[in-house]
Amino acid sequence: MEDEEQGGEWAPKAWAHLSSVRSLSPLIQCITNFVSMDLTANTLLSAGASPAMLHSSSESPDFTPQVHALYINVGTLSDGWLPAMTVAAELATKFNKPWILDPVAAGASGFRLKACLDLLSLKPSVIRGNASEIIALANASFGSSTRGVDSSHDSTDAVESAKSLANSSGAVVAVSGAVDFITDGNRVLRARNGVPMMQKITATGCAVTALIAAFVAIDPSHALEATASALAVFGVAGEIGMEMARGPASLRMHLIDSLHGLDQTAVISRVKISAL
Amino acid sequence: MEDEEQGGEWAPKAWAHLSSVRSLSPLIQCITNFVSMDLTANTLLSAGASPAMLHSSSESPDFTPQVHALYINVGTLSDGWLPAMTVAAELATKFNKPWILDPVAAGASGFRLKACLDLLSLKPSVIRGNASEIIALANASFGSSTRGVDSSHDSTDAVESAKSLANSSGAVVAVSGAVDFITDGNRVLRARNGVPMMQKITATGCAVTALIAAFVAIDPSHALEATASALAVFGVAGEIGMEMARGPASLRMHLIDSLHGLDQTAVISRVKISAL
Amino acid sequence: MEDEEQGGEWAPKAWAHLSSVRSLSPLIQCITNFVSMDLTANTLLSAGASPAMLHSSSESPDFTPQVHALYINVGTLSDGWLPAMTVAAELATKFNKPWILDPVAAGASGFRLKACLDLLSLKPSVIRGNASEIIALANASFGSSTRGVDSSHDSTDAVESAKSLANSSGAVVAVSGAVDFITDGNRVLRARNGVPMMQKITATGCAVTALIAAFVAIDPSHALEATASALAVFGVAGEIGMEMARGPASLRMHLIDSLHGLDQTAVISRVKISAL
Repeated sequence: MEDEEQGGEWAPKAWAHLSSVRSLSPLIQCITNFVSMDLTANTLLSAGASPAMLHSSSESPDFTPQVHALYINVGTLSDGWLPAMTVAAELATKFNKPWILDPVAAGASGFRLKACLDLLSLKPSVIRGNASEIIALANASFGSSTRGVDSSHDSTDAVESAKSLANSSGAVVAVSGAVDFITDGNRVLRARNGVPMMQKITATGCAVTALIAAFVAIDPSHALEATASALAVFGVAGEIGMEMARGPASLRMHLIDSLHGLDQTAVISRVKISAL
Repeated sequence: MEDEEQGGEWAPKAWAHLSSVRSLSPLIQCITNFVSMDLTANTLLSAGASPAMLHSSSESPDFTPQVHALYINVGTLSDGWLPAMTVAAELATKFNKPWILDPVAAGASGFRLKACLDLLSLKPSVIRGNASEIIALANASFGSSTRGVDSSHDSTDAVESAKSLANSSGAVVAVSGAVDFITDGNRVLRARNGVPMMQKITATGCAVTALIAAFVAIDPSHALEATASALAVFGVAGEIGMEMARGPASLRMHLIDSLHGLDQTAVISRVKISAL
Repeated sequence: MEDEEQGGEWAPKAWAHLSSVRSLSPLIQCITNFVSMDLTANTLLSAGASPAMLHSSSESPDFTPQVHALYINVGTLSDGWLPAMTVAAELATKFNKPWILDPVAAGASGFRLKACLDLLSLKPSVIRGNASEIIALANASFGSSTRGVDSSHDSTDAVESAKSLANSSGAVVAVSGAVDFITDGNRVLRARNGVPMMQKITATGCAVTALIAAFVAIDPSHALEATASALAVFGVAGEIGMEMARGPASLRMHLIDSLHGLDQTAVISRVKISAL
């Protein structure tokens, strides 16, 4: 099975996506949480994209129409930031820019869950979360009262929720985990790169969602494939980084260095994407 | 003297505390300053705890009752954040969760000093600061008008202030410095781990206070001992990190890697805690 | 030409500036963007300065009069932060403290451009930006309607804009790029240190502006020379860091380590500053 996955038709696509990001350097507006801003910006820069960490609703009307994609992450959500997210998402939709949602800890509070649902109604192109976040969103979208911060769900558990959420929202939905699943409600792709220690670095989930925004920015009509490519490429950078790491902090450094230095051979030989 | 301190009865306790954090992975809500969020979250993850960087007063009513401890740090305080801190601290007290206060630069302004005193009245379990911060808080608690940002005080100078503050507040008070002092107003422990270069890394003080929250979360009825353990363990990680470091930035990386990798032998042989 | 630049009269001045920062440890209040806070504070600490990341307008009246310089950076500007910047800048001017402006993405929106112009009217001592930012500010100061986020301008293109802006504002203006230009409107200095990969690390521009604040703090009557020294010293740290780096993330680490460890020989032999 693994032999089929490695290389195949998907790895060249992932390399093509990364190459396009490097040559086109898409401008990505990021409205993300305070914890992840540094890693998010450095991830985008290392991949060849241009991060723009602008969030004020006083300037999105001027700025959002000029970007190639918008990334919204609700990690350190507060009343003050939610309107800014809404304004930017509306502008992205209006100007036909892809926008990507990371519903961090969607089930942690009623306030947060409602905020995520409100953002969902503004038609994101892609939603990426862990299994618990995607299950919480899918359940809430269908009126279930399930809520919590439980992150013990396996990504496999969330595949059906992801498909439902994709169908109801019109977005591509990605569930991160030991195996990543990516679905448009119909097709399901599976990406199997990365190492467990990436979970011990704060904001790696936020960073890979930003990378998805960059990949979707340069191939918006194939958001499913671009999302899978971004997840796999980030995972490959983590695998190579892990070969040099002595713990989570050095892994973080080597991951970013590796993302910057990734060459065709590494991507082609390591990317593991397959259709489910 | 040093022979008595190393090992002894305290080092096994420190190892037991760290082992419990790793196995129980306590959920720690962090309302901390912008500068420290990345290092704080990574410190908690490397120690085996689960950081939750949620601060909005719109969601603390749902979330704080579910956490194992709350960490509040006033580093980049503003009018907008203070009510959120107050709401979370009140919830922690109401739901009998330990909460830990880091009164960064307590004496830097009248606004900040008053905010710290207000938070103090909400009954933190532990307060950790440097000598100047603890002296400023103790003086203000007793109506002295001394105020300033002087950080030239030695931690030894602050032991009496710490005891007074512990007695008046009911909190365990820790004073960080070349030697750390920890007191409940009656007993005084001394921890002597760490290296001077840790002072050249921003937010190491904030990070160790978060680690205290994780240690107290798993042993709330022994906050004095848990606080001393956290300070010593963080210091040991710094000592091991220093053996590989070439400057403050590589020390920061190696410290976090070391905290993640600490084994029983290293902790038992290096922890230096003693009763004063 | 390069032979003339290396060493010469300027390198000993740069070393003298760095030595003064290390011995005097100036207190620098930083009101900067969320992305850069960590790197900014660590840059100042590594250079020997004391960062104070306090921004609230509730405490600047108490705190700003005590600092040696103020650093304002508009990177993640919002309506809520602008008044705090204004209050602090006014206090700095009132108490005769140098204050330094980093007009990040000055042309990205009308809101941002107006904010930068308003701050400009509060008499900063130094303004540091890339070519596009300086051109946008200069054009706006003279009523031109040019606006945009184009960062493709070369620093050479911006020299005349920088001179105009220096003359109209009374500030020293620095334009960063492959070559840095620093002008008081009359004299123009050129600094040629650094490596291209520094552009792939978020917030290096913000960090060097903070370093300028520290250098100007200890030599406020020679802001032109102090600014050139700071830019060259940061570039030298990047050059030495690059010898050990494997990508942007390890460069970031080695740069900060190198800045901390810089000795007289390295500074004297590497600093390349010359009068234009």
